[in-house]
Amino acid sequence: MNEFELICRLTRSLPTNSAVVVGAGDDCAVLEPGAPDHLLLFKTDAIVEGVHFTAAAAPEKIGHKALGRCLSDIAAMAGTPTAALVTIGLPRSFKPEVVEAVYSGMNALARRHQVAIVGGETTASPERMFISVALLGWVPRGKGVLRSGAEADDAIFVTGELGGSLAGKHLEFEPRLAEARWLAQHFALHAMLDVSDGLAGDLRHILSASRVGAELLATSIPVSREAHLAAKASPSAKPALLAALTDGEDFELLFTVAGRDAVPLLDAWRKQFPQLLLTCIGKIKAGEGVTVRDKHGARPLTAHGYDHFA
Amino acid sequence: MNEFELICRLTRSLPTNSAVVVGAGDDCAVLEPGAPDHLLLFKTDAIVEGVHFTAAAAPEKIGHKALGRCLSDIAAMAGTPTAALVTIGLPRSFKPEVVEAVYSGMNALARRHQVAIVGGETTASPERMFISVALLGWVPRGKGVLRSGAEADDAIFVTGELGGSLAGKHLEFEPRLAEARWLAQHFALHAMLDVSDGLAGDLRHILSASRVGAELLATSIPVSREAHLAAKASPSAKPALLAALTDGEDFELLFTVAGRDAVPLLDAWRKQFPQLLLTCIGKIKAGEGVTVRDKHGARPLTAHGYDHFA
Repeated sequence: MNEFELICRLTRSLPTNSAVVVGAGDDCAVLEPGAPDHLLLFKTDAIVEGVHFTAAAAPEKIGHKALGRCLSDIAAMAGTPTAALVTIGLPRSFKPEVVEAVYSGMNALARRHQVAIVGGETTASPERMFISVALLGWVPRGKGVLRSGAEADDAIFVTGELGGSLAGKHLEFEPRLAEARWLAQHFALHAMLDVSDGLAGDLRHILSASRVGAELLATSIPVSREAHLAAKASPSAKPALLAALTDGEDFELLFTVAGRDAVPLLDAWRKQFPQLLLTCIGKIKAGEGVTVRDKHGARPLTAHGYDHFA
Repeated sequence: MNEFELICRLTRSLPTNSAVVVGAGDDCAVLEPGAPDHLLLFKTDAIVEGVHFTAAAAPEKIGHKALGRCLSDIAAMAGTPTAALVTIGLPRSFKPEVVEAVYSGMNALARRHQVAIVGGETTASPERMFISVALLGWVPRGKGVLRSGAEADDAIFVTGELGGSLAGKHLEFEPRLAEARWLAQHFALHAMLDVSDGLAGDLRHILSASRVGAELLATSIPVSREAHLAAKASPSAKPALLAALTDGEDFELLFTVAGRDAVPLLDAWRKQFPQLLLTCIGKIKAGEGVTVRDKHGARPLTAHGYDHFA
């Protein structure tokens, strides 16, 4: 049983109550706060030494990544993060200066996004460090973007470049909070998430939640320089396009809008965020599954996203 | 450096913002939700295999404990829990039926307290299971109880019996949510927390937050049957009274009220909760430190609470 099958089984019959607007299955849970203007967003995410970072990584970057992953999930709902709690599991031989450096990286990212860190705890974890972050945020009523709203003939967009994140970006990415809020304020986004498992796997999350399919244009996928370099470095390496489709941990925004909004959106984006690439990579189609169109025609995409237990 | 010293160092300069009512240092963080009647409570807590439970523990009870610890912190603020997120770290060889049983114990406790489980994740943790729970709750404005309000001449109360929790209670305790809400509705509680590190250590948390001292009556401490049995079982075991003061993981409520409220509170409690012991164990005094009074006089209490890194 892999991670996705286990999660499907576990989330079949979770306890719920009247405060739940959106439960398990989207980037964040959405909750009713009893306030007139907004809804609460609630997210938790953990990173484990040897799985999500190596012991050789700079501790400031480990802290940055731990909080950044949760911030990216709030961005995926077009929300604003408010407050975080941090749990750190530490081997008995931990060095206090390493833990302080982890916090230093986390605090710097939190301050840039006006997020309060309101507590947490340390606990013993004999073999390896882990960091679990819980994050609260909010979104104006009616402005939250789920995974389930994609429609046939939507244009599919992705920010930034994809693939090769392990070369460094996975520890340094900047969560696309301002970009996501701007998008939701100015355009009717149909579906959005952040690319954490890889474009191929994450696009499938939108497709299955929205009960639609998609066609991607191979030449449009924004392949990162790192993915190209890695592909050239070794004949046994993943081809760059496959890396961009499946590497994961890009933490870019993947979203869909009605086809008629595609050109105005691209024009407005380039004025607002001239430094950050935004690419239309394909369109939503009725049916199911993903096809990739290149000069030889359209073929089904079978590569799977990154699976932690694979 | 132990856990408390590290936490003190880390919490010196955490990022904050205008939504924070109470940050790090109490049982829960308290946040402004923009709603007229209530405040948000936010808490996270992790348990680790081999530290907080053994691999031999029934998985349902592991799940119960993971959620129960967070619920107990919401109780300590006289709050009502709403929604939880659950992160489980799993070795690659995990048995799906064990994870399902963990969830089964957690779900049963959540349903008894009308708590929704709104998602979370599984992640790889090669050597041992860990469970990190994030919990949201709420408390009516003006009814939340912090650690910092104890005053000289307050009576100190504790629910239930203390000590010997490792014999079983630490996996089976029922968080005192209804009791804490009833107390806060009917009496002016000055300070409250849940006894997780041991009475001696946790009382000191109230004293240092409130800048006061305390005198306990040795004969009044409600020592559990399990602490007495363990003390009798071996000449090298902790004396039962010391176990009640220092064992930890009792998850009972420790609170103070004005001395004049002590007798009316005890009378009303016995009618409301006839099955659950409530004991006045001493009083708050000006100054600092804890003394224990017995037939030989008053002596300073030097035993420390449980420290995860000791």
